[in-house]
Amino acid sequence: MTKIKTAIVGYGNIGRYALEAVQAADDFELVGIVRRNTQDIPAELAGYNVVDDIEKLDGVDVALLCSPTRAIGTLAEKILSLGINTVDSFDVHSDIVALKHQLDSVAKKHNSVSIVSAGWDPGSDSIMRTLMLAMAPKGVTYTNFGPGMSMGHSVAAKAVDGVKDALSVTIPLGTGVHRRMVYVELEAGAKFDDVVRAIKQDSYFSSDETHIRQVDSIDALKDVGHGVQMTHKGVSGATHNQLFEYSMRINNPALTSQFMVSAARATMKQPAGAYTVIEIPPVNFLQGDLDSLIAKLV
Amino acid sequence: MTKIKTAIVGYGNIGRYALEAVQAADDFELVGIVRRNTQDIPAELAGYNVVDDIEKLDGVDVALLCSPTRAIGTLAEKILSLGINTVDSFDVHSDIVALKHQLDSVAKKHNSVSIVSAGWDPGSDSIMRTLMLAMAPKGVTYTNFGPGMSMGHSVAAKAVDGVKDALSVTIPLGTGVHRRMVYVELEAGAKFDDVVRAIKQDSYFSSDETHIRQVDSIDALKDVGHGVQMTHKGVSGATHNQLFEYSMRINNPALTSQFMVSAARATMKQPAGAYTVIEIPPVNFLQGDLDSLIAKLV
Repeated sequence: MTKIKTAIVGYGNIGRYALEAVQAADDFELVGIVRRNTQDIPAELAGYNVVDDIEKLDGVDVALLCSPTRAIGTLAEKILSLGINTVDSFDVHSDIVALKHQLDSVAKKHNSVSIVSAGWDPGSDSIMRTLMLAMAPKGVTYTNFGPGMSMGHSVAAKAVDGVKDALSVTIPLGTGVHRRMVYVELEAGAKFDDVVRAIKQDSYFSSDETHIRQVDSIDALKDVGHGVQMTHKGVSGATHNQLFEYSMRINNPALTSQFMVSAARATMKQPAGAYTVIEIPPVNFLQGDLDSLIAKLV
Repeated sequence: MTKIKTAIVGYGNIGRYALEAVQAADDFELVGIVRRNTQDIPAELAGYNVVDDIEKLDGVDVALLCSPTRAIGTLAEKILSLGINTVDSFDVHSDIVALKHQLDSVAKKHNSVSIVSAGWDPGSDSIMRTLMLAMAPKGVTYTNFGPGMSMGHSVAAKAVDGVKDALSVTIPLGTGVHRRMVYVELEAGAKFDDVVRAIKQDSYFSSDETHIRQVDSIDALKDVGHGVQMTHKGVSGATHNQLFEYSMRINNPALTSQFMVSAARATMKQPAGAYTVIEIPPVNFLQGDLDSLIAKLV
């Protein structure tokens, strides 16, 4: 079997879990890891090729972009123009259509494939929302997040003056309404009341019920578990009260990177261009022979 | 907008609900209904073209095959060879791969498209099972059915000597184990003990916990509601204990026929050939402009 030659680009939280997901996939071969620091190599990367530029790796089929969301557009353009497929977990929902169009023209020009926003939301959750509408085209879908740590909200809270470290936990209250539990570790001399006021005024928090607690150590609270509870109640044809529910309790970076690896596999079967996950035949996410997968899953 | 011209072939339980699903879909136009009896037309078909052969209808793009499972192969071959796409809810899991290959060559020869087994199981449930494996490739998936009426088991119980009518309800006991609650209305002179013995020996029931109850009227018990509870607990990368759950409580023929209509829409975007639902990009099941759907769902 010809293996899918992959590179991990960026070696933070997602990159580390992506390494495990690639190692667990028989049909993948890890060609190397691309990161700025090529001197100070973590133990688990011993034996792998660690470089500071993907052009220093040979024969890469697909790159797993494990860099921050804001860096994805430029990075993906560069790699796609080398004829290498890309997968990312870009997570700014309102910018996904634009990112897809930006990468689509580059990918088509250089005969490569990009699957954008292939984490869990956007990502696998997006496919669930699509299927629920295919089953009951009318009705309301609620996606409830948590309980779990929100990266974006934690970063926003940490950016407030006087905050040394912060953790924002998303609590689902149902029907798409969320509570934010924000834990803050203060810098010496910072006043808690000022921090509370600043966080509550921040646009990340101003429209949600937000509770702020002062703690001694954020590190002691960190847990990358997360969850989703999705409900769709709607109408199939003329029949009302059709009820669909999906929920998961997962390790966040482990699921994100696993779904990216599954999407990387799917890039190998798409014509050149950029796609969101709802445009991909689901069976292409899986390893194995098509007929065997149909016999097992359909 | 050019509408998708569709025909409903077979007008039993599924066909009736398919009519409602087509009527509810703005992008479909119902060209006609194909059934044996063209004389005794139900009120809701007044104003529609009812014929005994699909060749008597003009310009059909896609036919919804609402006939019994055993008739699907021959019927689909005939219609595909007219250059008309087909969708069915063929439900014998072990024969799906063979049906797909049988129809694939016919469809390719006549430039038509078939999506097979596009109900809910096989059908939408198949896509859920596929996605769960894409998120956590290792681990066990359980599909628990019910509570709800099983068509196949009801027919098997009704075929037993002395049984005038029967209803078999599937009760989920978890981890893919099911109880069968069988209600029977006896023919005059039939002995209940003999019926119980015959049902328990039938291969449909012999391996499940089966309870048989005698009732005065099966008709008084019939309810087409059904349910599924699916669980996948598995491993993403090297991270264990990832938990995914999907459940639904639905009207069975309404969901089956709605998903067939959604699949009929998807046939319009596939290259010639036959497919199972896990080979179809999920967004193609939906009505609307691709970018708008991405903006809303991804």
